Amino acid sequence: MLAVTILGNNSALPAFDRHPTAQVVTMEEQLFLLDCGEGTQMQMAKYKIRRSKINHIFISHLHGDHYFGLIGLLTSMGLLGRTQEIHLYAPADLKDIIDLQLKVADIQLPYLLRFHPLLEEGIIIREPKFEVACFPVYHRVACWGFRFREVRPFRRVNPEKAREHEVPSSFFDRLKWGESYLKKDGTIVENQWVTEPAAKARSYAYAADTMFDERIAQKVSGVDLLYHETTYLKDLEEQAGRRFHSTTSQAATIAKMAGVQRLLIGHFSYKYEKLQAFEQEAREIFPNTDLALEGVTYRV
Amino acid sequence: MLAVTILGNNSALPAFDRHPTAQVVTMEEQLFLLDCGEGTQMQMAKYKIRRSKINHIFISHLHGDHYFGLIGLLTSMGLLGRTQEIHLYAPADLKDIIDLQLKVADIQLPYLLRFHPLLEEGIIIREPKFEVACFPVYHRVACWGFRFREVRPFRRVNPEKAREHEVPSSFFDRLKWGESYLKKDGTIVENQWVTEPAAKARSYAYAADTMFDERIAQKVSGVDLLYHETTYLKDLEEQAGRRFHSTTSQAATIAKMAGVQRLLIGHFSYKYEKLQAFEQEAREIFPNTDLALEGVTYRV
Repeated sequence: MLAVTILGNNSALPAFDRHPTAQVVTMEEQLFLLDCGEGTQMQMAKYKIRRSKINHIFISHLHGDHYFGLIGLLTSMGLLGRTQEIHLYAPADLKDIIDLQLKVADIQLPYLLRFHPLLEEGIIIREPKFEVACFPVYHRVACWGFRFREVRPFRRVNPEKAREHEVPSSFFDRLKWGESYLKKDGTIVENQWVTEPAAKARSYAYAADTMFDERIAQKVSGVDLLYHETTYLKDLEEQAGRRFHSTTSQAATIAKMAGVQRLLIGHFSYKYEKLQAFEQEAREIFPNTDLALEGVTYRV
Repeated sequence: MLAVTILGNNSALPAFDRHPTAQVVTMEEQLFLLDCGEGTQMQMAKYKIRRSKINHIFISHLHGDHYFGLIGLLTSMGLLGRTQEIHLYAPADLKDIIDLQLKVADIQLPYLLRFHPLLEEGIIIREPKFEVACFPVYHRVACWGFRFREVRPFRRVNPEKAREHEVPSSFFDRLKWGESYLKKDGTIVENQWVTEPAAKARSYAYAADTMFDERIAQKVSGVDLLYHETTYLKDLEEQAGRRFHSTTSQAATIAKMAGVQRLLIGHFSYKYEKLQAFEQEAREIFPNTDLALEGVTYRV
């Protein structure tokens, strides 16, 4: 499963019971936290997100609505007796802030907090079954997007068909790599007779906060699900640009250019109580668009 | 009016929809924020606390459950265009944390944040109609209690009676100070004929976080309302002491020793889902005790 659960969908000012940015990506039975605005740990409790399954946290940039909840989450995990290490990917300055806050409270976390400063574009986690990359987006301060991608290089063996063709199970690993099997009698069992193509490798990309920039379309090209911020409706395009944010039309244009399957929009300004217009405007350009709603899980 | 509204009544870990510590004192048509745990700005929205009426903020100590919501509140006030200055009373290190968080976000607050480091016991605000003092409490890191006291030095003039006795209104200010009036015919209008005693000066004291220490009783002696932390029930007295916290019996004992009118208890550990036992145990020693409940305003 690859899915994203929204914990906060509002921009800087919490309003209308909408919270600052936080999302949880579920992939390979792990949880990955994307940004951590104030109140994220309470939102996790509300929506039954298991903190203990989070081993990786990503902070896009150091505006407060994307990280003011982090120190509370980290210290709560410590109070709960966590010992499993956490990997934190964030702009370098965040380490100084965390260190200072722990120092003045005379606290030592009972687990290892591995800090990975985001310095350049590229793959930041490479595991056998998935990888995570960061890429620049374009905001008032240095800001990073993140791309999650399953890795599915192997053909899937059909064990019944393989046995029918007398392929021993010791050869199954080689079948996954696409090899055919040479039987003792000299005949060949063609690989495609006993395997199916590799499963589709799903992908999710997160682009917040950012102004409209076509380079983003290239970075998220072809992902199944794209989250792109839409702080404003399209009539405020000038203001959006000035504040390094995006409108509905701009997010939808990026989704279209990038050829993604589906678009999720969020980071709504506190000026908007109702959100329907966001959906309508984005769908005019990119029909397969949904609002990022708190507590909702979007499966890829 | 002197009153306190509870925004958060839980200790370090938010749980059971209880939040970390924050309170708002209403006095002389101003709001005074006492501590500011994570989510305080959302709690303010929920309970309709007007941020614009807060000019003074007090942080008792630098454990996160007492201040992690401050930076979010301060930056939100900025985003809302506040220009009125704010006085912040807190341990000195908090300034470094705020400065660093504003610097990395490249933010300048549009209002003046006047930082007053808490260094020694004594009066920290002295206004014509009220004063606020700080006093040490006893926790694992330096921690301060706060005492709010109305100032009501003046007798109250009864204008009808004063006119009956032919006291000119130009003399009313001197009546307030207790003077009697000498009429032109040589007779005296005794002050108490035309005035009433000064209104009672109400007081509130806040003692969190602290272990049991009899010196606190002296600092809060005779206040009308005392808030004292009770992280644990009385059976965990040993644990409370080790963690520099208090039990129900200990808080009630301080209230009794100090001769206060009424006791409010809070800062409940996340280990307790139900709170009735807190009230019961404290009332065994100090009957006029209430639980500090979120969203409730306690008038003095």
